[in-house]
Amino acid sequence: MRMAELSSVSGVPVATIKYYLREGLLQPGERTSPNQARYGEAHVRRLKLVRALIDVGGLSIAAVQETLGAIDDQVSTHSALGFAQKGIAMPDVAVDEETRAWALSRFEGVAKEQGWDLCTDDPAIEVLISVMGAFRDLGHENLLDGLPQYASASRQIAEQDLASLAGMKSVEQIVESAAVGTVLGDTLLMALRRIAQQEVSHRVYGD
Amino acid sequence: MRMAELSSVSGVPVATIKYYLREGLLQPGERTSPNQARYGEAHVRRLKLVRALIDVGGLSIAAVQETLGAIDDQVSTHSALGFAQKGIAMPDVAVDEETRAWALSRFEGVAKEQGWDLCTDDPAIEVLISVMGAFRDLGHENLLDGLPQYASASRQIAEQDLASLAGMKSVEQIVESAAVGTVLGDTLLMALRRIAQQEVSHRVYGD
Repeated sequence: MRMAELSSVSGVPVATIKYYLREGLLQPGERTSPNQARYGEAHVRRLKLVRALIDVGGLSIAAVQETLGAIDDQVSTHSALGFAQKGIAMPDVAVDEETRAWALSRFEGVAKEQGWDLCTDDPAIEVLISVMGAFRDLGHENLLDGLPQYASASRQIAEQDLASLAGMKSVEQIVESAAVGTVLGDTLLMALRRIAQQEVSHRVYGD
Repeated sequence: MRMAELSSVSGVPVATIKYYLREGLLQPGERTSPNQARYGEAHVRRLKLVRALIDVGGLSIAAVQETLGAIDDQVSTHSALGFAQKGIAMPDVAVDEETRAWALSRFEGVAKEQGWDLCTDDPAIEVLISVMGAFRDLGHENLLDGLPQYASASRQIAEQDLASLAGMKSVEQIVESAAVGTVLGDTLLMALRRIAQQEVSHRVYGD
């Protein structure tokens, strides 16, 4: 199909499609003349994925590029999960050494209970340290009393995440599922947490 | 203290403080002359909170305004949790009636198992429906097989969220904790999910 048809089938405006092509979010079509190209089902599918990562997952163009890069590189399942953390907007709060040591020591105790063998160059640990530092800095250190419960619930979520991938056959399917499941899954889990908070709050405090 | 000192104590540049004053994110100082004002500890504290919501929580200025509005209005604990869902970037994906009915019916079964009495005008349910629709539209409907596990883990998280508030005495403290705990807590939980995924993945797939 031509660009105009790709636009009407996918619901994405032509100008946006051209922008995605320039940014490398969409693979080029097959050239049929110097200024025309033909697009196929793979383009429709990729456009849907890009829209979902941006609109539903809330990713930036740069984060979408990284996510698609991981899918296109057909990295291993273990690495596919690894890249997905790039989808977290990294807090740009400077954490001093004292805060860092305090947060790490506190989290290591929790991780040990979960049987986790922490990889200290994991960017997600940096994010965790920043949030822990922010809680303390704002005088809400008590919110960290729930860290063991949060870690335990997160482990259950992660086990389900991995179980969903286990039945898949092609590497492409596994990698795309890991990306979509992690990025869009974050939004799903935020929504479920809000719904559950309302339910628990209603039970505890009534109206 | 004067504006310059407020800036050096909080680490927030003067131009940024002036911007926050214009946007209503920071309460005005006490006027001491037509073009000078005096600021106090409450201003330092509020500036820290605004920076944390933006830098660590990833909130937009508009979302920070809503969050602070809820804190300043001293709404009830039940409502304090309610407003916090505004922190979710709402997906702007149009969901058709068929998708909506399918998602709602599927989620209602899960909610029933959890003993939840859904309030259908909850904006978080709209977000959930959008994500469910996106999973299906992208051919990853199987990722929803874990919905009961995700709901159960989210309930455990929500119960911990509420337990953290239970010991607090002042309404102000409860409301600020609910806001900080929900918004920054989302980032904390995203980080914990990534860490747990790495651990589970390492156990299942090795390197």
